Amino acid sequence: MPEHTAASRLRLSGLCFLLQILNILLFAVFVRYSPESSPGQCPPQLNCSRRNQDSGFQQPRFQDVHIQVLLSFGLLLAFLGRYGPGSAAISILIMAFAIQWAVLIQGIFYFLLNGKIYVGAQSMVSADFCTAAVLISSGAVLGRVNPVQLLLLALLEVTLCTLNEYILLSLMGVSDSGRSLTVHTFGAYFGLMVSRVLYQPHKDKRKREERQDVGHQTDVFAVVGTIYLWIFWPSFTSTTTVHENAENWAVLNTYFSLVASTVATFILSPVLYEESTPWMVQIQDATLAGMAVMGMAGEMLVTPFGALIAGFLVGLISPLGFRFLTPVLHSRLKIQDTCGVHNIHGLPGILGALLGTLLTLLATADTYGDRLELLFPLVAQGSRTITDQAFIQLSALPLTLLLATLGGCLTGEL
Amino acid sequence: MPEHTAASRLRLSGLCFLLQILNILLFAVFVRYSPESSPGQCPPQLNCSRRNQDSGFQQPRFQDVHIQVLLSFGLLLAFLGRYGPGSAAISILIMAFAIQWAVLIQGIFYFLLNGKIYVGAQSMVSADFCTAAVLISSGAVLGRVNPVQLLLLALLEVTLCTLNEYILLSLMGVSDSGRSLTVHTFGAYFGLMVSRVLYQPHKDKRKREERQDVGHQTDVFAVVGTIYLWIFWPSFTSTTTVHENAENWAVLNTYFSLVASTVATFILSPVLYEESTPWMVQIQDATLAGMAVMGMAGEMLVTPFGALIAGFLVGLISPLGFRFLTPVLHSRLKIQDTCGVHNIHGLPGILGALLGTLLTLLATADTYGDRLELLFPLVAQGSRTITDQAFIQLSALPLTLLLATLGGCLTGEL
Amino acid sequence: MPEHTAASRLRLSGLCFLLQILNILLFAVFVRYSPESSPGQCPPQLNCSRRNQDSGFQQPRFQDVHIQVLLSFGLLLAFLGRYGPGSAAISILIMAFAIQWAVLIQGIFYFLLNGKIYVGAQSMVSADFCTAAVLISSGAVLGRVNPVQLLLLALLEVTLCTLNEYILLSLMGVSDSGRSLTVHTFGAYFGLMVSRVLYQPHKDKRKREERQDVGHQTDVFAVVGTIYLWIFWPSFTSTTTVHENAENWAVLNTYFSLVASTVATFILSPVLYEESTPWMVQIQDATLAGMAVMGMAGEMLVTPFGALIAGFLVGLISPLGFRFLTPVLHSRLKIQDTCGVHNIHGLPGILGALLGTLLTLLATADTYGDRLELLFPLVAQGSRTITDQAFIQLSALPLTLLLATLGGCLTGEL
Repeated sequence: MPEHTAASRLRLSGLCFLLQILNILLFAVFVRYSPESSPGQCPPQLNCSRRNQDSGFQQPRFQDVHIQVLLSFGLLLAFLGRYGPGSAAISILIMAFAIQWAVLIQGIFYFLLNGKIYVGAQSMVSADFCTAAVLISSGAVLGRVNPVQLLLLALLEVTLCTLNEYILLSLMGVSDSGRSLTVHTFGAYFGLMVSRVLYQPHKDKRKREERQDVGHQTDVFAVVGTIYLWIFWPSFTSTTTVHENAENWAVLNTYFSLVASTVATFILSPVLYEESTPWMVQIQDATLAGMAVMGMAGEMLVTPFGALIAGFLVGLISPLGFRFLTPVLHSRLKIQDTCGVHNIHGLPGILGALLGTLLTLLATADTYGDRLELLFPLVAQGSRTITDQAFIQLSALPLTLLLATLGGCLTGEL
Repeated sequence: MPEHTAASRLRLSGLCFLLQILNILLFAVFVRYSPESSPGQCPPQLNCSRRNQDSGFQQPRFQDVHIQVLLSFGLLLAFLGRYGPGSAAISILIMAFAIQWAVLIQGIFYFLLNGKIYVGAQSMVSADFCTAAVLISSGAVLGRVNPVQLLLLALLEVTLCTLNEYILLSLMGVSDSGRSLTVHTFGAYFGLMVSRVLYQPHKDKRKREERQDVGHQTDVFAVVGTIYLWIFWPSFTSTTTVHENAENWAVLNTYFSLVASTVATFILSPVLYEESTPWMVQIQDATLAGMAVMGMAGEMLVTPFGALIAGFLVGLISPLGFRFLTPVLHSRLKIQDTCGVHNIHGLPGILGALLGTLLTLLATADTYGDRLELLFPLVAQGSRTITDQAFIQLSALPLTLLLATLGGCLTGEL
Repeated sequence: MPEHTAASRLRLSGLCFLLQILNILLFAVFVRYSPESSPGQCPPQLNCSRRNQDSGFQQPRFQDVHIQVLLSFGLLLAFLGRYGPGSAAISILIMAFAIQWAVLIQGIFYFLLNGKIYVGAQSMVSADFCTAAVLISSGAVLGRVNPVQLLLLALLEVTLCTLNEYILLSLMGVSDSGRSLTVHTFGAYFGLMVSRVLYQPHKDKRKREERQDVGHQTDVFAVVGTIYLWIFWPSFTSTTTVHENAENWAVLNTYFSLVASTVATFILSPVLYEESTPWMVQIQDATLAGMAVMGMAGEMLVTPFGALIAGFLVGLISPLGFRFLTPVLHSRLKIQDTCGVHNIHGLPGILGALLGTLLTLLATADTYGDRLELLFPLVAQGSRTITDQAFIQLSALPLTLLLATLGGCLTGEL
């Protein structure tokens, strides 16, 4: 961002002021605390039990919520590792705005009752998921757009991401508790399309060289970010899963997957590059990819060795994507991908959705037991066969891709 | 600290040795584990239920205690962002000593039964609050006093801070669960008065230049510290609130407040300074200020947009204070404020206390429901009107300021 | 690691590939999710209640498991503080492999039922303890062995460490919930013996100079690592303790011990070295030592001042060991100790075991109450006297040392 003229500085300042005043006014008109007498966030006069089942949620404990909120920060740290501390201030601004905006937009879709939005712990969790998708998208265009453009991107993406989530989780009844599709895949392809529309050949080269330079200097952030992800992500994934017993599987699957994908990086890195050990950013990418692939399938019956295999494969695909796919994307499709979100979030998210579909097809009442009711309530109630559920899970993938690319094009044009 | 003579080194070493031996002896004579048969820390022969109500506490779970202990570290990291890693070793020494000393002093005020101090989870929480106040004060004088003086400051401040806390929470029945007054305001003004008494014009200039230099180098600490505060503080605030249901409000209010104050920094920073985006330390200051203002009011009925407005205003006031108030304090009142604790903790703490008083005045049994019993037990029992309670909340502010300034003068003289 | 030839790079890559395929195959054949209908990880047809009692475990909550998993990362960060970020990538590879391998090996000893290993939350905790021992050992030889050798070390040490743990906890009924012996002592002496066998005089000097150079540069890691340990370790220790009430003691004891050992560092450091304040790595070492000494004794009746004294003494011994013992070890016994694990883990572990034995001898049914059943189930059932238990606790020390030295020699030769 070399052109720090007074006008552009004041434009950012003024836009922040307007948006914040707008948020305060909208909050004043619409947002209320969720009535605490009810066990969930649902007033007694309304029957909202079905929605809770459909969205795969239960009321999370407050202790868990605060761990949930960490998600965005993990991603933030991941980008610091790739792009350097210069991006931190802007990322925090985007995050602070997107959380408020997501509470409003999500409230309109989910929590609007009697003309009021009732916020509670669950609203914050949903808002944070949305913010994570925005951060993923911003990773694709970081360094090539100014803060004002990023704020507008957040404004539009929060709306579209909530729409996609609403269609998938509430209308179609897709089971995607770890958000392979609604966060990872949507965020990655949205960002890539914005990047495609904003393509500027000459700016790109300079930026890429800069990034190359900071590669080794940002090792501190990459180390801290990797450790952070290892610690909190398995627990994070298990927070949104449906049941005390089911948590067990999600934690174990995610943990096995990330361990295997880390080892895979050590296998490919010496073959693809000159270095004998991978850089810390590559290990961090493998960690993120190994987690993204377990998003949808995490709480299904992956089995321990299945999780190891999935993590291992995605750990091989992600560095191969960096080596061979990113240059092709850039030269043929004119898509620049500053932080490589296609390899870290896009591809693993798609693989995770395919894996989740396959496991849905294999699900039987015998092997899942009580879980079936929680994972696929419509199947357990008999109103849908397991094949239909698998088909719906699968069809959610092209739908998400379509919405993300259309939204990305639209946002890029604006 | 240029003069590292052998004598001064050995004086610090000897003082540490004496204090630690003293602590061990006092612990051996007075401190015992709290008897575990009782649900709280209270032996059956004593009726201590009322004290628990008055101090606004319930027995915290051990899981929560360890999050509590994080408070001091958040502050520590915040100062590293402002002053650089050179201060870390001394801060940890101060912390290690202050925690032991606070267990002893607080034990004498709160937990002394039959001539013994019974320590448990709650003692550690109280001791840690006290340590936080000491760290805030040390932020005002960092770089101008030697470690021996800082140890003496900790020795005196722990005693006075506990006295202030005892008068406010136990004798007057003030509701201040997030410690706007007893930690933020007390710590800030205590440190400022010590700084006033120790004023040395020539030393100051050199130090200020040093600080200017490290401004950009310490971005790593500021990034880590900011992320740390965002993650743990909302949860921390909710730990000391009185009730499972009330937690909800404190988490949401704190979170909304810090989000709004972060955006406010992005609005003012381009206007006040040449930079287009704020430094990370400024974002960190906004985060701290947005949290300090929700200290007393956090568990009251702030409403979501009220929290946004409060955070927004304090996010505007804090950078204005740095720009205009700190130079005035320095030139007119001869108060040097190394880390700007007046803008980060002092002013937001006072505003938080005023906001808390206002909200107390507006509290009714209808809107608060069961919370009233927990927040203002004397009001709920009918022994005090809501106006009296508001007056007492308000009068706690000048009392805290008085004790802090007197204590600071006394400590500075010594 | 200067010789980065293509052959050595591909050897590491190939070994990782073979080991990962082996792990996947073994997981596919043996590992299953633990059946969730049972409250623990134990199928109903088997009576495994006794084993649970013997090993001093109860089924941990999933929330706690993820905190448990932090242990290895604390150690990892500690080594980064001593040795610099260059070691991070290799350490993470070792960790990723050792966790999978430990699940398999521990499964064979503990969880093998009907030819299947049933993994659950407890398996992950046990696997992580084992990984911690491997990381401690690798700290002794870091910089003098290549990654392939470190992988073989992990392969063998996991097996031997599990064997030692099985003999101590399950066969002998030793109470060692904080793992003074099975993790700290075993890991330290295993690594030292490997270091002894691999002694290469000329390589050592170069490495030592390098380490000296990074001493001040790695302060960032040391600060983050120290804060991390202060926050999570007391909570970590309490996770494996046997009972809700007993947690209280373990948290308090560990906290008091680390506070005192930190102050002790400030006493000795100005006397032993020229600096007026200790380096951050020295404070970090004191923190680790103060925690290791509370491993076995943490949940016993140490009393608060006993914990202060133990932490104070170990905080004095650890820097003295660095100053006087490490040079003697190096010149006389030809043992090089890159990160000083003997002073940080070895000596404090032995002292912790001796302290635990002493406290076992002093244990009576009166002072322990319900804890006795949980800490020493065989004593509470009357099948063993308290003197026998103390003798067994004591005899576990030489046994662990023997196994560690033999295993280290064997591994070093290979």
